[in-house]
Amino acid sequence: MSLKIALAQINFLVGNIAANVDNIIKAASYARDELSADIVVFPELTITGYPAEDLLFRADFISAANNAVYQIAECIDDIAVVVGFPERDGNSLYNSAVVLHQGSILACYRKQMLPNYGVFDEQRYFSAGTQPCVFEFNGVFIGLTICEDVWKSGIIDETKHAGAELLLTLNASPFNAGKIHQREAIICEQVKAAKIPLIYVNQVGGQDELIFDGASFVANSQGDIVFRAEEFKEQISVIEFDGNNPLINSCAPLYNKITSEYKALVLGIKDYVRKNGFQGAILGLSGGIDSALVLALAVDALGHDKVEAVLMPSRFTQDMSNEDAITQAEILKVKYHTIPITPAVNAFTDMLTEVFVGTTKDATEENIQARCRGVILMALSNKRGKLLLTTGNKSEMSVGYATLYGDMAGGFAPIKDVPKLLVYELARYRNSLYEVIPERVITRPPSAELAPDQIDTDSLPPYEILDPILERYVEMDQSAEEIMAAGFRYDDVVRAINLVDKNEYKRRQSPPGIRITSRAFGRDRRYPITSGYRGI
Amino acid sequence: MSLKIALAQINFLVGNIAANVDNIIKAASYARDELSADIVVFPELTITGYPAEDLLFRADFISAANNAVYQIAECIDDIAVVVGFPERDGNSLYNSAVVLHQGSILACYRKQMLPNYGVFDEQRYFSAGTQPCVFEFNGVFIGLTICEDVWKSGIIDETKHAGAELLLTLNASPFNAGKIHQREAIICEQVKAAKIPLIYVNQVGGQDELIFDGASFVANSQGDIVFRAEEFKEQISVIEFDGNNPLINSCAPLYNKITSEYKALVLGIKDYVRKNGFQGAILGLSGGIDSALVLALAVDALGHDKVEAVLMPSRFTQDMSNEDAITQAEILKVKYHTIPITPAVNAFTDMLTEVFVGTTKDATEENIQARCRGVILMALSNKRGKLLLTTGNKSEMSVGYATLYGDMAGGFAPIKDVPKLLVYELARYRNSLYEVIPERVITRPPSAELAPDQIDTDSLPPYEILDPILERYVEMDQSAEEIMAAGFRYDDVVRAINLVDKNEYKRRQSPPGIRITSRAFGRDRRYPITSGYRGI
Repeated sequence: MSLKIALAQINFLVGNIAANVDNIIKAASYARDELSADIVVFPELTITGYPAEDLLFRADFISAANNAVYQIAECIDDIAVVVGFPERDGNSLYNSAVVLHQGSILACYRKQMLPNYGVFDEQRYFSAGTQPCVFEFNGVFIGLTICEDVWKSGIIDETKHAGAELLLTLNASPFNAGKIHQREAIICEQVKAAKIPLIYVNQVGGQDELIFDGASFVANSQGDIVFRAEEFKEQISVIEFDGNNPLINSCAPLYNKITSEYKALVLGIKDYVRKNGFQGAILGLSGGIDSALVLALAVDALGHDKVEAVLMPSRFTQDMSNEDAITQAEILKVKYHTIPITPAVNAFTDMLTEVFVGTTKDATEENIQARCRGVILMALSNKRGKLLLTTGNKSEMSVGYATLYGDMAGGFAPIKDVPKLLVYELARYRNSLYEVIPERVITRPPSAELAPDQIDTDSLPPYEILDPILERYVEMDQSAEEIMAAGFRYDDVVRAINLVDKNEYKRRQSPPGIRITSRAFGRDRRYPITSGYRGI
Repeated sequence: MSLKIALAQINFLVGNIAANVDNIIKAASYARDELSADIVVFPELTITGYPAEDLLFRADFISAANNAVYQIAECIDDIAVVVGFPERDGNSLYNSAVVLHQGSILACYRKQMLPNYGVFDEQRYFSAGTQPCVFEFNGVFIGLTICEDVWKSGIIDETKHAGAELLLTLNASPFNAGKIHQREAIICEQVKAAKIPLIYVNQVGGQDELIFDGASFVANSQGDIVFRAEEFKEQISVIEFDGNNPLINSCAPLYNKITSEYKALVLGIKDYVRKNGFQGAILGLSGGIDSALVLALAVDALGHDKVEAVLMPSRFTQDMSNEDAITQAEILKVKYHTIPITPAVNAFTDMLTEVFVGTTKDATEENIQARCRGVILMALSNKRGKLLLTTGNKSEMSVGYATLYGDMAGGFAPIKDVPKLLVYELARYRNSLYEVIPERVITRPPSAELAPDQIDTDSLPPYEILDPILERYVEMDQSAEEIMAAGFRYDDVVRAINLVDKNEYKRRQSPPGIRITSRAFGRDRRYPITSGYRGI
């Protein structure tokens, strides 16, 4: 008996149930009419989008999501539709998958493994299911599972014992560098051990901090991947089963690490702008590497006509900074303005003269410059309805080498989770396609240009030393002792850790940004501001 | 057999294990030497403070906390010490309570009910215990429980069945208005049903958003409260038991609602400033009710010599605003400065003339004024090492009636969870002690003073209508239909809900503030920014 199963790797909008239902119906019709599919499988919590967070506490929202299931069932015939939704049963809510066929519900499964770590808070919302779910379709016994369920062997085994010959898995598995290899390796290991083929459908798209990378796949019962959808793109594909055996289709190749990171960042910007209804994006272009990369990403995401750059030189800005910024804006055909900040800085300096009598210059004066730029950029953002992109990187966010309400101002921080060394790598990667970032921007020593002849290493260890220390301390939770045992100098470790510890207050007010590592600042790393913990 | 049990209601610093251990040892010695206590009971997770959040993922932190238990055991003799700590066992972590006596561990209990709702994320960190814990001390069988365990009957019954004649409960139960009545009513109901006396020890102090209110208590087996410690204060008390029967001691009276809210706000400011090592606080004083209340709170929290006020009039500022601000600063003996913002506003206006050619005035120009004030206040904060207090209230935070990086700038937002009508009530309450806020500040119509003759009701429904709509929509998750069914007009409901829905991005970048309602913005209400959900 042959069975055609479609994988609907779609980009949904969290919270917009009506639009998501429309998308589901369109995709199911396409799978039926164009791909001759018998079954179409959607990602986890299809109807609400993932993660809907505390929207899941709203009774009206849950009612709408539950009603939507019946609406879909009524609208689609002649194909079985497998969608995820938050299922209400009395006072409990389940993360469920339902099989709709010919106007009725053929099966419903409640997710058993609810992740509550990292970026996940599913135990805040859902009760856990307790039973496997197997349904018969065209003579094949098909088991339903959801995301975390298939990362360990328990639920897969249980579902197989309940009679399943084939597993469908609905997922919302977010991207980070290397995640796709980890995901495929772990799940295929389970599949191989259980000797059961598996269809894995993942969500695609950006949702605040998270990028869902798609890369839906099909594994045969030997644990070999016989089909893979593209990464970072919507795609509806079909794979044919001879009984429960998948006929080999095709595998989209996996991007290498740097390409996948770049594509994740582009998708993140594109979806944040689009889904939040902005007219485009603006950013401050300093002639430095961070804003150069963000400009390249923004143009790749939105098109050159949607992006606007602002040069805001001060007396500390070197000529080459302005030159390089203009060169890049011209290469990328981006509209740019030059607004020197000196008049505003002078105004504030005069206004503060009296209250600052007797004090000495310190970071305050540097922050005033950065904040004048923040005021200008926000004024343009407000007036144009364009999203202000913040250009700070993860190394800066870690050590607080940034000014609150100054260069940290903005609605979205695309490279917030990109360490400085990776900023350089991404810039070189982008230039390898064709050069859009002037070479000098990449090769000159980085500087905030807030004081005469300032360079980053006046205040920080070189990034070649700082970045690996930060990775160990921030992402891996290593202690100072462990970091020093790995060969780093006491002074560098102390300097880095102290800065991380005392700058949580800045991070708490930073805009959201795109998560590309396995531990981003944000929902992934929840630290108290008020804290007596000192890493050293 | 008589038993004297001390309740150590202490203010701990999250993350500072060494300081917390010192405090525990000091308090235990005091309980032994001054109060002749046989046992001293501390709050939940005493050693780390609560909530330590993702510090609990750090192996070095957990090692230090586990070692601290032995250190305390070695330092204290002749009194049993009951402390909470994150207990590591293999790869699992438990929220545990341990009884230390004569250098060894007499008993150890692992919390069974792990709250994962509201402000709580305990399932992110801890595995649940599975067994009750009863130990014998001086012939009395004593059961251990932790916080959430005693809010339902199951664990209490189980512990009693295991032989307990008396329950000790270690807690970190945060304040919100009315919480103490709810807490005592629910727990005493369990106690009465199980017929077992209970000693409830709560943490006290401010920790970022949360205020722990203390109010530790003792209930006899009839469910009557026979002892209560003060609210919002450190206190070490002792209560004598005749066998398992508490001898009546004394009950600190409960504050009424408005008094407890005021005291919670004062404690929150005091602890945020103290625990984060600031030199004091500064704020912008506009002559409006919000900054007037925050100034009064700050002076009550820190003393007049630690607080600095800044008047920043523009051409839209009425004379009475400046007069009233100065009057209040003088009543409270607070140092103040007047820095008109016009030079900076004019500078930005000139700098933006060219890029704004052909545009019309809108909120952009109002935001520039607010952001000039933000720059001035942050400059003073940076230069003085004083915390900038943000003066926005919950009604504004809900509807986004505030400027990012403008009046929203600051490190801490004391009245962020105080709706506007409650701002007035709190001001009147404070003046009822003795007048510190000029009457005209309370009686004049509220205005942002960012445009000629502007008042809040130009853009918003009157607060008498807006606040109850917001309470229903934001705190109670009611739908528009439910709110209209409660008697509110369609237009008002639409206006309020739309503003709440579209301003999540501002809230995400707002400073932390003190939670005094049952649902604050922050860890209590986690909404996506990118969201297609529309409440109407």
